[in-house]
Amino acid sequence: MTGSAALFTDRYELTMVDAALLDGTAHRESLFEAFARRLPDGRRYGIVAGTGRMLDLIERFRFEDAELEFLREHGVVRDETLDWLADYRFTGEIWGYHEGEAYFPGSPLVTIQGSFAEAVMLETLVLSILNFDSSVASAAARMVSVALGRPIAEMGSRRTNERSAVAAARSAYIAGFDATSNLEAGRTWGIPTMGTAAHSFTLLHDTEEAAFRAQVEAMGPGTTLLVDTYDIRTGVETAVRVAGTELGAVRIDSGDLPTVAAAVRRQLDELGAVRTRITVTSDLDEHAIAALASAPVDAYGVGTSVVTGSGFPAAGMVYKLVARRGDDGEWVDVAKASTNKLSVGGRKNAARRLDSTRTAREELVFVGDGPEGEDEFAADDQLRPLMVHLMHEGRADAAYTGHAGVEAARAHRDEVMQELPIEAFRLGRGDAVIPTSYR
Amino acid sequence: MTGSAALFTDRYELTMVDAALLDGTAHRESLFEAFARRLPDGRRYGIVAGTGRMLDLIERFRFEDAELEFLREHGVVRDETLDWLADYRFTGEIWGYHEGEAYFPGSPLVTIQGSFAEAVMLETLVLSILNFDSSVASAAARMVSVALGRPIAEMGSRRTNERSAVAAARSAYIAGFDATSNLEAGRTWGIPTMGTAAHSFTLLHDTEEAAFRAQVEAMGPGTTLLVDTYDIRTGVETAVRVAGTELGAVRIDSGDLPTVAAAVRRQLDELGAVRTRITVTSDLDEHAIAALASAPVDAYGVGTSVVTGSGFPAAGMVYKLVARRGDDGEWVDVAKASTNKLSVGGRKNAARRLDSTRTAREELVFVGDGPEGEDEFAADDQLRPLMVHLMHEGRADAAYTGHAGVEAARAHRDEVMQELPIEAFRLGRGDAVIPTSYR
Repeated sequence: MTGSAALFTDRYELTMVDAALLDGTAHRESLFEAFARRLPDGRRYGIVAGTGRMLDLIERFRFEDAELEFLREHGVVRDETLDWLADYRFTGEIWGYHEGEAYFPGSPLVTIQGSFAEAVMLETLVLSILNFDSSVASAAARMVSVALGRPIAEMGSRRTNERSAVAAARSAYIAGFDATSNLEAGRTWGIPTMGTAAHSFTLLHDTEEAAFRAQVEAMGPGTTLLVDTYDIRTGVETAVRVAGTELGAVRIDSGDLPTVAAAVRRQLDELGAVRTRITVTSDLDEHAIAALASAPVDAYGVGTSVVTGSGFPAAGMVYKLVARRGDDGEWVDVAKASTNKLSVGGRKNAARRLDSTRTAREELVFVGDGPEGEDEFAADDQLRPLMVHLMHEGRADAAYTGHAGVEAARAHRDEVMQELPIEAFRLGRGDAVIPTSYR
Repeated sequence: MTGSAALFTDRYELTMVDAALLDGTAHRESLFEAFARRLPDGRRYGIVAGTGRMLDLIERFRFEDAELEFLREHGVVRDETLDWLADYRFTGEIWGYHEGEAYFPGSPLVTIQGSFAEAVMLETLVLSILNFDSSVASAAARMVSVALGRPIAEMGSRRTNERSAVAAARSAYIAGFDATSNLEAGRTWGIPTMGTAAHSFTLLHDTEEAAFRAQVEAMGPGTTLLVDTYDIRTGVETAVRVAGTELGAVRIDSGDLPTVAAAVRRQLDELGAVRTRITVTSDLDEHAIAALASAPVDAYGVGTSVVTGSGFPAAGMVYKLVARRGDDGEWVDVAKASTNKLSVGGRKNAARRLDSTRTAREELVFVGDGPEGEDEFAADDQLRPLMVHLMHEGRADAAYTGHAGVEAARAHRDEVMQELPIEAFRLGRGDAVIPTSYR
């Protein structure tokens, strides 16, 4: 697999380009929109993530010789189409929600304008990124809101594909997690990494004490010792004996966590290790974290549940043609009429209506006007514009990509969360916390 | 992100290596095992997938300058450890279940033997691959078994991370799917690709008829026309008028599928298009496919449910140290004693007991003897050995990697499925279809 993203594409995108080049419609200027028809069942809000990764991959979307040869060999498209693909670069415009923004059913998360051929080509790539990354961010945000300020580390790499693990770490960080176990996420996205030892390190040694001594020797007493390989009470006692009362933290990865955490806290305090923290990491999700609110826990490590979207591993976004020019140059709004999959055609802009306390009350989707002009509602203090210009003539705005984009998204999410009504943070099932209205 | 897999690793693996190099235990020969404590809730069996990808990435697991520089800059390990990492290659032995094999709770799916340092390093990579790929294969196998021989195409790339989409297509193919929409899976793994057009292609054109004409012009009348953009009955009529009765297939992506498929079949037959096939693709999972058994459907396209493991997006496998040598050179079986996460220590071998009708009756796990010697049970016709030698001295057996590995896994799964008791194929929730016994 090369560095090119060009084949992260469903075959039908190329066959559509092939046919549309033949009859000339490939060049009709078109507007595609990515949105979610609904939130995952029972969720109150979603968090957009993946935008920065998406912009980067779109900029690098090229058909090199290796990709063209594969397409030729398998007769995917005609030779004339191969020539067109060889020159392919996305040269259009992309607007969308700021990464880290909250979203609701129908929110126009990303709109992509270009010729039909250049914009339809990005369908699978755009959706793969938005669906996966937003699924993780939406789950992670719920965990962050019930952690009540205690730090959470993402450590679920082993429970998702090795490369989606990197994207998952990025999404969790944007949603407010503090660190990740994944080293590639540290390198690629500048996310703080953490981790000390597994049970295998203790089992490798002849005794638990020997393992703790080796770890403290290498990492200093401020490290985190995993105390539940054998008996937790003995483990804690040994940990403090080896590291002293300066021991940074103990980690508990099994058992009934509220009970165990309370017992370990008492024991640490009795041993004088009053500043030693307690980290818990056993099969946590938002409900387990909420149940630990009153337990003496200092930090959480979350794995499976966050990288798999806590029950909703795909955010359900779709990518639809909503408008295109005819041969007369006029824009025509379009939408399919299938009974159970309705779409709203037309160019969109969006704003969130806030009340006098700056609390979100309504998601407003303006149909017909895009975000490319002056926002007619810009002067209205109660309407916060939601769409930003992510890419112009095929070049991404650097504010939204790379490490800077990740930090900006994380900060944006933090601001947005303060705007949501308090009911948004109830874990129980319910409807979207604000309604979406079309204007 | 480079081509190196070295940072698809949790930080704690490197800190363990760092500490174990300091006290000399890093060089203790060790045996790690990947297994699942249980099947996903209610499932009767699982299908192992990812093995071929895993072997490939382990062979290429190297710390190049870029990775070492990141680790140095962030103080992840000591300088002496960086030197050791620079020379890292896995030089050990790997045995495991054949890719495509069925598995049950406790089945020793992969065992990795090498020094502690070289084997612990692979923990996250091995689990990421096995957990994701097996999750998809296990879901896909259930869909294949209820499709009753009708072909199924995987088209869920857009509902999972762009790179896990490639792995998902591979897993679904191993589990018996016939094709994928994902072009990179075609290139990397030799899987047949398919796809013709989306609703956007119809909406791009001034009329549905113009869209169908363009597609038939480019791809011939044997193509598949998507008939539900507007009114299905009109769509079918237009499709046959444009392509003639030689039309290859129509695709339906919405509506109540059993009813719609029956109506479309009647209409096609009345129009003389008696050989035109019907493909359905709307939110299918194993239950929806089962419900279409008596409908006149010729082929299925499955998206979200297969790439997200149909409710179980991670297979729940863990990677545990089960034995290691002491300083006296003797092997010691090890296992942690945490209350709710029991493991069985020791080297393992495994066989499936078949009855006289060659039906599987029991998963036998032999503790203490590994698969590296003569299988003591090889002469017993009722015991089918399950473990194969996947990698020797750091080199993968080519039979299990690349395109050949994929085809071998697919063929193996097909054989194995014929061995499972009929109850394995009930969709309803139940226990593992055969018990696991330790000997």
